[in-house]
Amino acid sequence: MNIVVQKYGGTSVGTTEKIKRVADKIIQKKNDGYAVVVVVSAMGKATDHLIAMAKEVSKNPDSREMDMLLTTGEQVSIALLAMALIDKGYPAVSYTGHQLRITTSSAHQHARIIDIDPARVDRALREDKIVVVAGFQGVTEEQAYTTLGRGGSDTSAVALAAKLKASCEIYTDVEGIYTMDPRKLKNARKLQSISYEEMMEMASLGAGVMHYRAVELAGNYSLPLYVASTFADTQGTMIEGASKLMEQTVITGMASSLDDVQITVRHLPADASTLYRLFGELAQEEINVDMISQMITDAGEMHVSCTIPKETKELAQRIMTRWQVENPQIRWELNLDIAKVSVVGLGMRTHSGIAARVFKAMADNDIEIRMVTTSEIRISWVVDARHEDKVVLLIGQAFGLTT
Amino acid sequence: MNIVVQKYGGTSVGTTEKIKRVADKIIQKKNDGYAVVVVVSAMGKATDHLIAMAKEVSKNPDSREMDMLLTTGEQVSIALLAMALIDKGYPAVSYTGHQLRITTSSAHQHARIIDIDPARVDRALREDKIVVVAGFQGVTEEQAYTTLGRGGSDTSAVALAAKLKASCEIYTDVEGIYTMDPRKLKNARKLQSISYEEMMEMASLGAGVMHYRAVELAGNYSLPLYVASTFADTQGTMIEGASKLMEQTVITGMASSLDDVQITVRHLPADASTLYRLFGELAQEEINVDMISQMITDAGEMHVSCTIPKETKELAQRIMTRWQVENPQIRWELNLDIAKVSVVGLGMRTHSGIAARVFKAMADNDIEIRMVTTSEIRISWVVDARHEDKVVLLIGQAFGLTT
Repeated sequence: MNIVVQKYGGTSVGTTEKIKRVADKIIQKKNDGYAVVVVVSAMGKATDHLIAMAKEVSKNPDSREMDMLLTTGEQVSIALLAMALIDKGYPAVSYTGHQLRITTSSAHQHARIIDIDPARVDRALREDKIVVVAGFQGVTEEQAYTTLGRGGSDTSAVALAAKLKASCEIYTDVEGIYTMDPRKLKNARKLQSISYEEMMEMASLGAGVMHYRAVELAGNYSLPLYVASTFADTQGTMIEGASKLMEQTVITGMASSLDDVQITVRHLPADASTLYRLFGELAQEEINVDMISQMITDAGEMHVSCTIPKETKELAQRIMTRWQVENPQIRWELNLDIAKVSVVGLGMRTHSGIAARVFKAMADNDIEIRMVTTSEIRISWVVDARHEDKVVLLIGQAFGLTT
Repeated sequence: MNIVVQKYGGTSVGTTEKIKRVADKIIQKKNDGYAVVVVVSAMGKATDHLIAMAKEVSKNPDSREMDMLLTTGEQVSIALLAMALIDKGYPAVSYTGHQLRITTSSAHQHARIIDIDPARVDRALREDKIVVVAGFQGVTEEQAYTTLGRGGSDTSAVALAAKLKASCEIYTDVEGIYTMDPRKLKNARKLQSISYEEMMEMASLGAGVMHYRAVELAGNYSLPLYVASTFADTQGTMIEGASKLMEQTVITGMASSLDDVQITVRHLPADASTLYRLFGELAQEEINVDMISQMITDAGEMHVSCTIPKETKELAQRIMTRWQVENPQIRWELNLDIAKVSVVGLGMRTHSGIAARVFKAMADNDIEIRMVTTSEIRISWVVDARHEDKVVLLIGQAFGLTT
């Protein structure tokens, strides 16, 4: 039995009209000889509507009951999609997370999948049925309904595919993974394939499409993920192990964002505990620090700079104000108008000098780099916000990211 | 532990605002020292909305998937109600039919409850929680979700109360059971109590409020049912065993309806199989026959008259046309403009002459009776539709059904 798990997101099943079109697409795959398992999200705005009602009855809704509420969203989608398939003459059956025993941790609203019992899906597939599964949800050992949080439905699909030893196709409202968000870089190139590691770096930079978590799970199982458009009949992108990639380009993709601010703290005591205490306090307030750079001056003082999400800047300001009181010698500043630009590519492992090429492109155009960090397959740097478009264009051209 | 099961219908939880008011009412009961289990229906128009979507994807939606879809309606209500209770400082927990193992037959959309496992409710009540249960739904042995059909949520509440040895309160948008629909008889009297048998007769006459099925189940378990208004703080009606009723009135209630038509067939052969064949064919087409009257003429022919729901009249016409072909001697007619009036009362068992009083009232006012049938506690008769209001008023006065 050649099994494929297809996942359709909320915009793909946003209306009953779209659900019927998705049914046609599923039937096409079935007619190609596949046993098809479909994972669906809640219809378009359904989840938002449910959350709005919850806020009307409680300012801080109970998280178990929130999951009880939200899981209805996918249940509506699976029922409608199964009906549409049956209506078109194809036997189908839908299952909730509870019915499939998609067992999760008990962390409501961001549960982790522990295991899936594939028996019921197996049986239905053997009966030649199309199986429609509610994404984003599971059930605890105590039978409480849970939701998986961001990237949840993709994770459901990957976990199911891994368990069923199936291939996995993620259908969405974009046509695949691009070298760069096409809204930011005109003529950005669609990638035929990208490695799990690169995709994870891109995802953690907020380059939409796939969530870090689902890609990581697919990587753990060496499960190739095909990402393509639901309604446009174009070739998508394969996310797979690096060894399978025919040709290694140096830079696979780029991301840029205006969503961060930069904090710089100067004249800190250079003793061992300072960094630990500083980032410990930020972590305690759940402030996600991304880039960090640090140096010790001739005078034995420490300067630290880091980027944090814009929406946490008030929290960080409060912490810094307190530090200032305790350590009157320090100076700190917040830079609100920054752009964070990153390039990602497995090729960096073997090609040296990528950073130098980036720095040259910046220098040639008089763009000041305010901060740089690098990992094995990523370089990120901070420039003034007003330079974002120019930097994206320069790097896109320099590394051949456009068509 | 003094347990009460309260049931709130769809209009009582139609908006988040109403859900908060229902929460206050539940809390009042809890503060009176009761362990409270609440059964709720889907919010107001939620079910209609789901059905409309189903019709958009399939003209004849699969019944298993229809139940998968419809059960989300109550799941939304229970989550929101539990959130509202928790928000007001009262620990609460919601359960679906699946979670409570409300096991039903596998007849999707009109399943019957087989059993309920009370363990989970027991445990939650012992933890001092208010338990919120999704009405109208259950699960088959094979874990498929089912719905119970008309009167389903009331039936869920009664079954739970019977299992938990609890008392049962049905809250709705009317203030109790009246001698007659107050929209039809001004000053109709609200009953303090009514017996199961009378209520079942009233229910089967379409006298709203309670469905036959829930009343029958309550009667089987000798479980008193209290029916009252959700938001008006007035005394409701107790449905209970006849022996508990202090005073037996002759007539407890009246119902009238314009929803039937009358078929009369004359000159039928008077042999034994005719009636069986005639009503057998009507039954096969799922035409519900209510009143039947029959007589044999001097000439040894049979005349039969019966009432059937107006919406099945085309089906019946087709059957009669076929009979006419097979039996050219018969004559049949359909009377579309009839009113069916009924009086119900346990008192008829001991008081003779009720029928005579009815006939006298009709005769005194020149109202022709087109058909009569009687059961042990009910008399029903058919008059021309234009007389309905007059008959209701006359009988209401004659038997003291008004205030």
